[in-house]
Amino acid sequence: MRLSCMDLKSLFYPESVAVIGASADKTKIGYQIVRNLKEGGYQGKVYPVNRKGGNILGYTVYPSIGDVPDKVDLAIISVPAEHTPEAAEECGKKGVFGIIVVASGFSEVGRKDLEDQLVEVCRKYNMRLLGPNVVGLMNNVLKLNASFAPYLPYPGTIGMVSQSGALIVGLDAMTWSNKTGTSFLISIGNMADLDFSDLVSFLAEDNNVSCISLYTEGLKAGRRFIDTARSIKKPIVMLKSGISKHGSVAAASHTGSLAGSHRVYDGALKQAGVVRANSIEELFDLSLTLSLQPPMGGDNLMVVTNGGGIGVLATDQAELSGIPLQTPSDDLQAKIRQVIPSFGSTKNPIDMSAMATPEIYADTIKTVMEDDSVDGLVVLYCEVANLDPSDAAKGIINGVLSSNRKIPVVAGFVGGEHSKNASLYLIKNGIPTFDSPDKAVKAMAALRNHKRMNDLICLGPARPKDLKRDGVGDKLKKYAQAGVKSLNELESKEIFEAYGIKVNKTELAKSRDELKSLLKDFKYPVVLKIQSPDIVHKTDVGGVIVNVKDQDEALKAYDTIISNVKANAPQARIDGVVVEEMFRGDLETIIGTVNDPTFGPTVMFGLGGTAVEVLEDVSFRVAPVCEKEAYDMIRDTVAGKMMQKFRGRGPLNVDAVVDQIIRFSWLAYDHPEIKGIDANPMIVSEDGAIVVDARIML
Amino acid sequence: MRLSCMDLKSLFYPESVAVIGASADKTKIGYQIVRNLKEGGYQGKVYPVNRKGGNILGYTVYPSIGDVPDKVDLAIISVPAEHTPEAAEECGKKGVFGIIVVASGFSEVGRKDLEDQLVEVCRKYNMRLLGPNVVGLMNNVLKLNASFAPYLPYPGTIGMVSQSGALIVGLDAMTWSNKTGTSFLISIGNMADLDFSDLVSFLAEDNNVSCISLYTEGLKAGRRFIDTARSIKKPIVMLKSGISKHGSVAAASHTGSLAGSHRVYDGALKQAGVVRANSIEELFDLSLTLSLQPPMGGDNLMVVTNGGGIGVLATDQAELSGIPLQTPSDDLQAKIRQVIPSFGSTKNPIDMSAMATPEIYADTIKTVMEDDSVDGLVVLYCEVANLDPSDAAKGIINGVLSSNRKIPVVAGFVGGEHSKNASLYLIKNGIPTFDSPDKAVKAMAALRNHKRMNDLICLGPARPKDLKRDGVGDKLKKYAQAGVKSLNELESKEIFEAYGIKVNKTELAKSRDELKSLLKDFKYPVVLKIQSPDIVHKTDVGGVIVNVKDQDEALKAYDTIISNVKANAPQARIDGVVVEEMFRGDLETIIGTVNDPTFGPTVMFGLGGTAVEVLEDVSFRVAPVCEKEAYDMIRDTVAGKMMQKFRGRGPLNVDAVVDQIIRFSWLAYDHPEIKGIDANPMIVSEDGAIVVDARIML
Repeated sequence: MRLSCMDLKSLFYPESVAVIGASADKTKIGYQIVRNLKEGGYQGKVYPVNRKGGNILGYTVYPSIGDVPDKVDLAIISVPAEHTPEAAEECGKKGVFGIIVVASGFSEVGRKDLEDQLVEVCRKYNMRLLGPNVVGLMNNVLKLNASFAPYLPYPGTIGMVSQSGALIVGLDAMTWSNKTGTSFLISIGNMADLDFSDLVSFLAEDNNVSCISLYTEGLKAGRRFIDTARSIKKPIVMLKSGISKHGSVAAASHTGSLAGSHRVYDGALKQAGVVRANSIEELFDLSLTLSLQPPMGGDNLMVVTNGGGIGVLATDQAELSGIPLQTPSDDLQAKIRQVIPSFGSTKNPIDMSAMATPEIYADTIKTVMEDDSVDGLVVLYCEVANLDPSDAAKGIINGVLSSNRKIPVVAGFVGGEHSKNASLYLIKNGIPTFDSPDKAVKAMAALRNHKRMNDLICLGPARPKDLKRDGVGDKLKKYAQAGVKSLNELESKEIFEAYGIKVNKTELAKSRDELKSLLKDFKYPVVLKIQSPDIVHKTDVGGVIVNVKDQDEALKAYDTIISNVKANAPQARIDGVVVEEMFRGDLETIIGTVNDPTFGPTVMFGLGGTAVEVLEDVSFRVAPVCEKEAYDMIRDTVAGKMMQKFRGRGPLNVDAVVDQIIRFSWLAYDHPEIKGIDANPMIVSEDGAIVVDARIML
Repeated sequence: MRLSCMDLKSLFYPESVAVIGASADKTKIGYQIVRNLKEGGYQGKVYPVNRKGGNILGYTVYPSIGDVPDKVDLAIISVPAEHTPEAAEECGKKGVFGIIVVASGFSEVGRKDLEDQLVEVCRKYNMRLLGPNVVGLMNNVLKLNASFAPYLPYPGTIGMVSQSGALIVGLDAMTWSNKTGTSFLISIGNMADLDFSDLVSFLAEDNNVSCISLYTEGLKAGRRFIDTARSIKKPIVMLKSGISKHGSVAAASHTGSLAGSHRVYDGALKQAGVVRANSIEELFDLSLTLSLQPPMGGDNLMVVTNGGGIGVLATDQAELSGIPLQTPSDDLQAKIRQVIPSFGSTKNPIDMSAMATPEIYADTIKTVMEDDSVDGLVVLYCEVANLDPSDAAKGIINGVLSSNRKIPVVAGFVGGEHSKNASLYLIKNGIPTFDSPDKAVKAMAALRNHKRMNDLICLGPARPKDLKRDGVGDKLKKYAQAGVKSLNELESKEIFEAYGIKVNKTELAKSRDELKSLLKDFKYPVVLKIQSPDIVHKTDVGGVIVNVKDQDEALKAYDTIISNVKANAPQARIDGVVVEEMFRGDLETIIGTVNDPTFGPTVMFGLGGTAVEVLEDVSFRVAPVCEKEAYDMIRDTVAGKMMQKFRGRGPLNVDAVVDQIIRFSWLAYDHPEIKGIDANPMIVSEDGAIVVDARIML
């Protein structure tokens, strides 16, 4: 499906634009696009195309694009879906660089065939395609409104892409009311050709874009997106909708059911360094902030306020957002003491009290910003009778400009219309400002998270040198050819061992006698488990006996298991009884892999045992992962917290878990034919981490 | 501290107001209050009081309040803190009903003495006091601005109280910009006399108030507040700030450290039916909604939209907010099909598509509202070129008005200034409207939660009839007199048994021989534990041996424990070894009590064992609790989820846990001298719930 790569600049910065299906009828989209090109202020050439010819809004109309006397960089095709391949064909012949197809009626209504036809034409002529089913493209740098949205967004440096066409006009309007400066607003539609990866790559290279802002309902080629996103430094903010179970795919396997693809998105987007927004408002707030302010390099956030109440709310939010406030050094407090009123507080939040003047704002801000320990500053103002918000805003700007040290600054103004106006004034001056202390802190946290995630990004994780990959693929192939859907424990562990994954000693006894002979090499206690292709949940049929302490007990357990299974699952085929060394540890975890429809092979880790389904404490990453990604995965889980030092024992062996995660991730990555692996539990102790039960699903 | 109760109406609806410390100097608060009374439009009598006499803004100034020729209902005292007792004395002599003390400089800066003095005077004259340290009182019904905030709030029916004076002007301004209609805006200050309970009681009785809205930093008499709040039906919304650990009290005991008072607030406010807001914005959004719309009686939320994108976002939020969307009946879908465009969706969200007209909005809304299965309706609009937001708003109002069935309706409008204006128009017409789908859904969820919590409210829980309370108080008194801070396991279990709390069989063996004799009455396996007043964490010193299977093993275990303890804790006094029957169950839980500084005796329950500190899965309630509160507590926890039916076993015995919770709650309530109880673990099985380890702290 991927077309040969061409410079997208001709599409996004065209010198000339044709509108195919242009119309003189004001109710038609074909008219509105021409009007928008004109009213938007685009200075390039505009060529309406319509068989009828004539003139629209002063532009000469050409009967066909072939008749246009000059080159055409971009063609907007506004004809019904079924005529678009033909129109695209004409564009191709003309040598157009890129086309935008506005019509709906393609894959979104089951007409994948028509969409494929369109793409076929584009491929033939090396044209790139935005759409179909889009509102269009707005480039504020060129004042190019190549869309049927009525006006260009508020100018600025955010490059915004929306997968929902219906949202475009709303987003456009919001940029004006929130003064969220935007250079590009792009409707991405069905992504038949250009997808999020392409657009992100383009926007990343564009000097008129300082932050990439995405409204996403679903990525198509997830892995490619992750690879693209992680390779660029420019901040990316994403609102991913459709995270509710209502919309998530029900998966058959146990692990799969935990996957619920939004959890995979959580991990994958973190790997890619993408900042997440939880609402449209947050998408705007965080994009604005990341477009105006530098990342926050460390954890020390200082809050300056003229009111205690909003200071407390900021303190609460800082803790919730993972940047809890720290008390300033004595030295800094002494300096602050000199510039704030005597009854103010030099602790963090720094409370200048309701007596704060613009000068006190400026002096306090300068003092705080110039202290080397401070990594970020949130300035708060709540309306008081004696300080107008516009004056507070001026004080803040003076303070920031007079500081000789640059750190991220975000403001929060609580009040009514005057505060709103002061906020917009601050935004115009480069300081993102919100109508509450919590939003200001959340915005600062995004600057921090962007930095934290970027510090964790791995480009090209290294394959462990001791993997014995030879033969694993062949084995899996044989199972698949034999119609095996699920490898049993023994078969699974054999594969694991090839990848250096640590498992407990496990053998299959096909008879009582065989068990007796095998037991000679085992350390007690052992566990005995039924082995049957027909039994998944072995405990349910009395097929598991644990804590077996010697040979006599083992032989008795063998008999019990066989009779239990014969009673409870009379139809089940019995391969024998598996005997395993028991591994005592402190924590039961789950580790596994899922071949995700969007991101391909992923690795997962979390709390195991019976807690797994209730707590859903699992963290996913796209495979393969490097060490720091594996550590981060563990940190994301409750299991990770439970591995810390705890009464009467030291910390559990995190390094061993990291090693297992890395090996599982390579196993999944090397063998996409594996649908999923469910190793539950993996027992973690102070000494190591050992998989004691598992199955591989094909 | 409580004063005799008088009708607060004279304070909040005064016929005459005196301003003590009135001033002709425009920079003085004593001037601003007089000005605000005049400019606000108050129609009652205003009497400025100042020794200098004269005239302020046309009002005659009296040298003292005694000189006022008429009765005075309310006096606002605007003199420095140290002069307020004297001023209050004069008010008392005059027969004033209530006073507002504006000055700061009392308990908030350590001058509790001055505050006590002030209260003393009020008590003497049966006067009620708002403050000190307040901005004042605004009553929009009387157009009474008895404060130094410059104007009255936007009129409506919210009764708002703020503990932060600094926030008052900001909140006031926000009522205008958000059109959040407010009848009362009250600064509550130091609460030397009138506190949240008093104000909530008053507002609950007031016909001009339909929703009570509270910004709270900390309640003073928590239990009284809970009792007040749960006795009224009117919705109460609270933003409780100071929930971060930074501000929470560090408690010594294990259970105490989990208490972190915000968790107690969570439970207590739920018991009281108080809807929680997480930000100032949410306080406004939810208060507006609860002031305009009825509660949502069931779980079936229908979403009607003109855009798929915002529909998906609403779907996500509905699930997060605990009211996941349900698919409409075939019958309702058929009816909807008749009124929406053919390419729309009749599923929930009902997508009328971008072709929706005002008529389609109206017809769809009427159709949905009149279906008996529907409990609440969220209507969404995102800006599109072909439907102006004001027209959409009119369609919505028509739809709601034409419906013959009334259910709660909330709207979300995504766009710019036009959408904002349409939202305000809808609000004026009684439909709370927000700028995003998620806020609209959150607001609806508040209407649902208000109903759910009210259904769970218990007034006067019944004491279990079989409590053997006699002697428990005396025993505890004796321990306290002996300086005992922590009762050991045996002592604790003895107290528990008096309250019918189920514990495992437990005895103390002071010698090897005594153990031998005791063991005759025990069922194996048993566990042996060291008993020493000097050892808290028994496992850490090798003082616990579990799974002891017969007498021989038990005697060996005794010796081992004694020698371990002698080696590891040579200084520890040894009382003997406790022997207990082991209780096998499926889940380790924690149950206990905490005597909270704000709410008094509380009961807690959650996941036990080693998970307790990591997961912090605990739920608190103010003691005593009734059955439905105990069930709700369990539902709040992960432990509750883990008690559900699970592979190979039935559901665990929730009723038994409920019974234990109720008994613990009475134990705590009857004996406030108990600082806390920490029973970890309480083992829960399909058959019951048994406490196997515990200590009572005094």
